[in-house]
Amino acid sequence: MIISLFALQNGLIRVIQLSLLGSILSNMLLVMGCAFFSGGLVHMQADQKFNQTAAVVNSGLLLMAVMGLLLPAVLHSTHTEMQDFTSKLNLSRFSSCVMLIAYASYLYFQLRSHRQLYDTQDDADESNEESEEVTLSLKGSIIWLAGLTIVISILSNYLVDAIEEASNSLSIPLAFISVIILPIVGNAAEHASAIMFAVKDKLDISVAVAIGSSTQISMFVIPFCVVIGWIAGKPMDLDFHLFETATLFITVIVVAFMLQEGKANYFKGLMLVLCYLIVGASFYVHSDSTSEEAGKT
Amino acid sequence: MIISLFALQNGLIRVIQLSLLGSILSNMLLVMGCAFFSGGLVHMQADQKFNQTAAVVNSGLLLMAVMGLLLPAVLHSTHTEMQDFTSKLNLSRFSSCVMLIAYASYLYFQLRSHRQLYDTQDDADESNEESEEVTLSLKGSIIWLAGLTIVISILSNYLVDAIEEASNSLSIPLAFISVIILPIVGNAAEHASAIMFAVKDKLDISVAVAIGSSTQISMFVIPFCVVIGWIAGKPMDLDFHLFETATLFITVIVVAFMLQEGKANYFKGLMLVLCYLIVGASFYVHSDSTSEEAGKT
Amino acid sequence: MIISLFALQNGLIRVIQLSLLGSILSNMLLVMGCAFFSGGLVHMQADQKFNQTAAVVNSGLLLMAVMGLLLPAVLHSTHTEMQDFTSKLNLSRFSSCVMLIAYASYLYFQLRSHRQLYDTQDDADESNEESEEVTLSLKGSIIWLAGLTIVISILSNYLVDAIEEASNSLSIPLAFISVIILPIVGNAAEHASAIMFAVKDKLDISVAVAIGSSTQISMFVIPFCVVIGWIAGKPMDLDFHLFETATLFITVIVVAFMLQEGKANYFKGLMLVLCYLIVGASFYVHSDSTSEEAGKT
Repeated sequence: MIISLFALQNGLIRVIQLSLLGSILSNMLLVMGCAFFSGGLVHMQADQKFNQTAAVVNSGLLLMAVMGLLLPAVLHSTHTEMQDFTSKLNLSRFSSCVMLIAYASYLYFQLRSHRQLYDTQDDADESNEESEEVTLSLKGSIIWLAGLTIVISILSNYLVDAIEEASNSLSIPLAFISVIILPIVGNAAEHASAIMFAVKDKLDISVAVAIGSSTQISMFVIPFCVVIGWIAGKPMDLDFHLFETATLFITVIVVAFMLQEGKANYFKGLMLVLCYLIVGASFYVHSDSTSEEAGKT
Repeated sequence: MIISLFALQNGLIRVIQLSLLGSILSNMLLVMGCAFFSGGLVHMQADQKFNQTAAVVNSGLLLMAVMGLLLPAVLHSTHTEMQDFTSKLNLSRFSSCVMLIAYASYLYFQLRSHRQLYDTQDDADESNEESEEVTLSLKGSIIWLAGLTIVISILSNYLVDAIEEASNSLSIPLAFISVIILPIVGNAAEHASAIMFAVKDKLDISVAVAIGSSTQISMFVIPFCVVIGWIAGKPMDLDFHLFETATLFITVIVVAFMLQEGKANYFKGLMLVLCYLIVGASFYVHSDSTSEEAGKT
Repeated sequence: MIISLFALQNGLIRVIQLSLLGSILSNMLLVMGCAFFSGGLVHMQADQKFNQTAAVVNSGLLLMAVMGLLLPAVLHSTHTEMQDFTSKLNLSRFSSCVMLIAYASYLYFQLRSHRQLYDTQDDADESNEESEEVTLSLKGSIIWLAGLTIVISILSNYLVDAIEEASNSLSIPLAFISVIILPIVGNAAEHASAIMFAVKDKLDISVAVAIGSSTQISMFVIPFCVVIGWIAGKPMDLDFHLFETATLFITVIVVAFMLQEGKANYFKGLMLVLCYLIVGASFYVHSDSTSEEAGKT
């Protein structure tokens, strides 16, 4: 009974981990790719420009998040931990706190001190708009997170069952549903708004929405879940397994590379969307041992 | 008899994989390094400049190719595939199609829509020349590929035997011949033309030749081979094993980093050539289990 | 007796490896992070700028060093070496020579030929100052290295014993002391001077000190140790194990990404310092099998 409960919780943690990871991937590749692509097609005569500094800071945060996720995964897979399970968990909790500090100071940086920097440039109104956008989406995300926590605590059994059932009836792997299908449905609103702003030639806002929500999930939602799990005594950690972390790593490098020029065109968008297809396909043939086992229990 | 044929084909596939990989590596590091180095020595008073946008788009394509090769290799080495052999093969075939789409749209982007972008800049004539260069080298590559296929289908036994024999008589590892020696001989023409253009201060064309052929091999020739293998029912896939993929990954990152400034000098060239020495040395001590086994059968 | 001596030497080599690695990490993340942070706080009204070209060349050298360290580690961990121990050692020695050539030509490039390039820009005096700084720190490092070699050859038994004792009495892992505590103490002087120059708005020199000494350790001190070990017949190689190499890899990517814009602000500094915290924490829970075993003998 207790073992089964533990296993279910493990399965649930894994589903949360995977759907958060999938949300980061879909925001970075699919949402931004579609925004670049549609924006590039409509404004074909010239490359669209966006705020390079903001994009670089965001990419830096994403790279830091990758570091936070990569070290526990490598630590685990090279079998060089001090104590087999505890040390990974302790590292995850420490890193989560560090990441939350980084995110808090990022918000301060963006909304207070860096605001002057924006104002010295001539896109003052857009940057304010963007800041509000980000602030709004932050508030939204806290509400969303709170809602999710409540919904999950009620529906915990039901959710895993439902996903598992869908997985069985459609013979689609569990991991694929968590990583690819759930996030696409969940990010539909951001997707639509990012494309809309890109078509209106306000690519700054599109990029802020797409990469902003990736940053937010990786530097705020994920560490927050770990801390919540810490308080609740659940073994949620930052070890997303090697394959998932490698996918995130190469994705962040591709996106950081694309963003850093500060220009976009439809071909870059197409490349991001095609990368998402490859990532999606690899998750389709990827069997996740943890969630499989939890499903079997 | 059939097993031996299968093994030989496996060995052959491996030789094709390795020589294509080596061709990418030697184009990116050796050819471009020599071009930067000789160009930098001749024009020492100032950094040479080249078309940054084209280089960034090419690096992006290379990163996408690395993603396509990395995911099957990581999937295989973490033992998290759905079905042990089929899933890797299916993923490779899907990714190959995606990569061919990306390459086709890249050609469209370069030759049709992006041509106007080039014309707005003042290096219109050079960009046309470059486009023609690329188009020519594309036609050349299709012919080369067709020729290669015919030659290979005739000489399949002979080729592996010859390489194997050379490997035994000179006591040089099989992988080293495939990855390092074959590509250097095969790329001699590109090598010479890249250096010539660099000395004439037309570094744009040198870079286009060197990185263009890397992109072409990774995004067109390799996926095309997989698709051909699919039609012919041969298990050619994108899993180049972990060591080879890691080498390619770090190489592409180094090259992408070097290119992205849009400037070159002789020290950058020297660094690339020295990187190639390190890569070459590591393949010299690297034993490739698959081709060894194929050799023994 | 002989086995124990060999093991002690192994342990010593490992301590040298780890403290050099830790020195690179602390210079790149902690020293540069603190310099960016304090400089950014004092000069808050605008981003501080530094010499982008020098930073990019240094990052390129660091990436090349990562390549030199990554290939032996991957070779070892994928078990695809020709001969089990010799080939890794030979590769390390060859790569070390290549890295020393690269560093020598880097010094020539910086002090002779590239000096003109600096003079064409308007920061001629600063670049000279910087060059002198680097030259001085090179001389200092050779003296430091010579001193270290003498001290180590005298105190070899004592050093490992002392670290081990401290490790036991304070119950801090051996690896953590080597990688984190030793380098922080050892780099205190560079740390202080980097922060001082950053506060005085001479960020160029700060960056030169921080990344210059990282480059110097990775491209000069480490290969030099390997060559010294070669002459002395000791099996010092470039295989820093997978976890350590992965840490260095992601760190260099983060730092290269931060540097490449040529601008700094306090938030970037904070991010680097927080990254260092995560790295430090992961080494705290990371048990290094080699040094543990040497400790037990």
